[in-house]
Amino acid sequence: MTNQAQRIVLAARPVGEPKPTDFRLESTAIPTPGPGQVLLRIIWLSLDPYMRGRMSEGPSYAAPVAIDAVMEGGTVAEVVQSNNDHFAKGDIVLSHSGWQSYALSDGKGLRKIDPKLAPISTAVGVLGMPGMTAYTGMHEIGKPKAGETVVVAAASGAVGSAVGQIAKIAGARAVGIAGGADKCAYVKDELGFDECLDHRDPDLAGKLKDACPKGIDVYFENVGGKVWDAVLPRLNPFARVPVCGLIADYNALSGDVPGPNRAPALMRAVLVKRLTLRGFIVSDFASLHGAFLKDMSHWLREGKVKHREFVTEGLASAPEAFIGLLKGANFGKQLVRVGPDNS
Amino acid sequence: MTNQAQRIVLAARPVGEPKPTDFRLESTAIPTPGPGQVLLRIIWLSLDPYMRGRMSEGPSYAAPVAIDAVMEGGTVAEVVQSNNDHFAKGDIVLSHSGWQSYALSDGKGLRKIDPKLAPISTAVGVLGMPGMTAYTGMHEIGKPKAGETVVVAAASGAVGSAVGQIAKIAGARAVGIAGGADKCAYVKDELGFDECLDHRDPDLAGKLKDACPKGIDVYFENVGGKVWDAVLPRLNPFARVPVCGLIADYNALSGDVPGPNRAPALMRAVLVKRLTLRGFIVSDFASLHGAFLKDMSHWLREGKVKHREFVTEGLASAPEAFIGLLKGANFGKQLVRVGPDNS
Repeated sequence: MTNQAQRIVLAARPVGEPKPTDFRLESTAIPTPGPGQVLLRIIWLSLDPYMRGRMSEGPSYAAPVAIDAVMEGGTVAEVVQSNNDHFAKGDIVLSHSGWQSYALSDGKGLRKIDPKLAPISTAVGVLGMPGMTAYTGMHEIGKPKAGETVVVAAASGAVGSAVGQIAKIAGARAVGIAGGADKCAYVKDELGFDECLDHRDPDLAGKLKDACPKGIDVYFENVGGKVWDAVLPRLNPFARVPVCGLIADYNALSGDVPGPNRAPALMRAVLVKRLTLRGFIVSDFASLHGAFLKDMSHWLREGKVKHREFVTEGLASAPEAFIGLLKGANFGKQLVRVGPDNS
Repeated sequence: MTNQAQRIVLAARPVGEPKPTDFRLESTAIPTPGPGQVLLRIIWLSLDPYMRGRMSEGPSYAAPVAIDAVMEGGTVAEVVQSNNDHFAKGDIVLSHSGWQSYALSDGKGLRKIDPKLAPISTAVGVLGMPGMTAYTGMHEIGKPKAGETVVVAAASGAVGSAVGQIAKIAGARAVGIAGGADKCAYVKDELGFDECLDHRDPDLAGKLKDACPKGIDVYFENVGGKVWDAVLPRLNPFARVPVCGLIADYNALSGDVPGPNRAPALMRAVLVKRLTLRGFIVSDFASLHGAFLKDMSHWLREGKVKHREFVTEGLASAPEAFIGLLKGANFGKQLVRVGPDNS
């Protein structure tokens, strides 16, 4: 620890895959809270695929991070000074403080976390945005029924692992897709999915067919790319496709993608199979937050939902960890330990 | 009239656009009803774009018509002989008897029509499958709200004209797309759409932008092709796209469509705009039939929904009329008068 704060700013807009030089680590003085403000010491920084979208200009559901501005991100922090009646020194809070070690807040958008209920890092994981993305996408769009088949990619990750376990709770067959034998073994043996396929398998489409003998009723789309191409022909009539991410496509250069043009076949599948494709982000279903916390914490206590964290140490590790996340180098929810967790 | 029945069978599976030689007109004896059967004399045959799908093999929501089998289709018919207690000579019924002048039925799937309520041809038009397609797609998927903007193509046709008028009833702005100045004038002046654009306009995308200054909230997809390409960039966040037809794509040869590949951009739009794309056919919402008949007949009586029929004479005209339908040669609901309407 020093008396300096650290922060990571966006140095350049990535072209294709982000590289380390697209980020810059800076040191600054630890700021002093003004009237009504609190000073936060960041403990956990969550890294999530959506951040790739914030690094590029162009239409999206949120404005991009400005060049030379602090990268945004969800964080778990300790209140170390408070000029705000609602927060006391020592409180642990969920904040959206971004890639930095200290931050000021006027209290808006902060949510207190009770360290007795669960490890505080889960507030940005299974009990936070990724868990709620899985929960709301399944609850509002996927709607799996007993006996149906649910497929999800990035199945060892924060969102995918919750999707498959929620499918099992609903009585559905859960088929995961993940990168490599270790992750697949974890998804089947630890998380209880019925099957898990390696997306590197050259015969992914054939393996998927075997793993889904009754077709696919729900495909939780969080990766795009070749997994989607393999899934589409196997979707059953009336299948539902919640679309919350397209990680495989995030790095695609803007402009034309080489043919053949698969869009007409996609629209034809929507028609003849009467598919529902629906995009969403977690904040669209904010009204479900209470139900999510209640159900998910219950499932965690009962052991019906398990989760795994993948931690890198120190704020300076964030760029490499994020670049790795987009390539599937993480194994579980990607976190950066920015400072000591004394909770 | 002769003592012979006529029928049109599928002679060959079309490659691309259907041509007259894909059909064959045959004469047969008028059949004799067996025990429990009725003999139907077909009065009205409805021609609809979905029939193109039935002419090809390959996965769809219904089996294709077999080679040398009678082309299928919705019909309005008179019971001319009855060995069935539920039907009497002279009854007018809705049937699915296909492209022929006489048909037998065991009564299953027949629905009696009251000629006093509306012209019997409307049972295959605004009060039938096309009207209910518009009604259910808007009710269950489009869900237009007052002040929103609804776009529909083939706006002078059976489905499109109802879609736009239902949008107006909901308080939304209705923008139609149709082929040629006459149809556009009808759509605006007679049907009461706010705007109607000519799909032949080389600057369709620009015109669409001007016609939808607040973007598009509902696009009722019944044509596909370049209209969809023009609409997609103008869709607002949370827009809904009921997909009930892709007439522009029906004739596309199977196999690869030349690039660029627009599918990734489509999926990205689904994600970042949180679109809902949902395919449906009218039978998916059969439970709404009572509500549809009640609302639509009420709107017809009040003059809130107008409709137009485009009639060709004689069963032999059906192939050319159907080929024309796929090219937009019709102006209103396409019907074939197979026999005299004495109702």
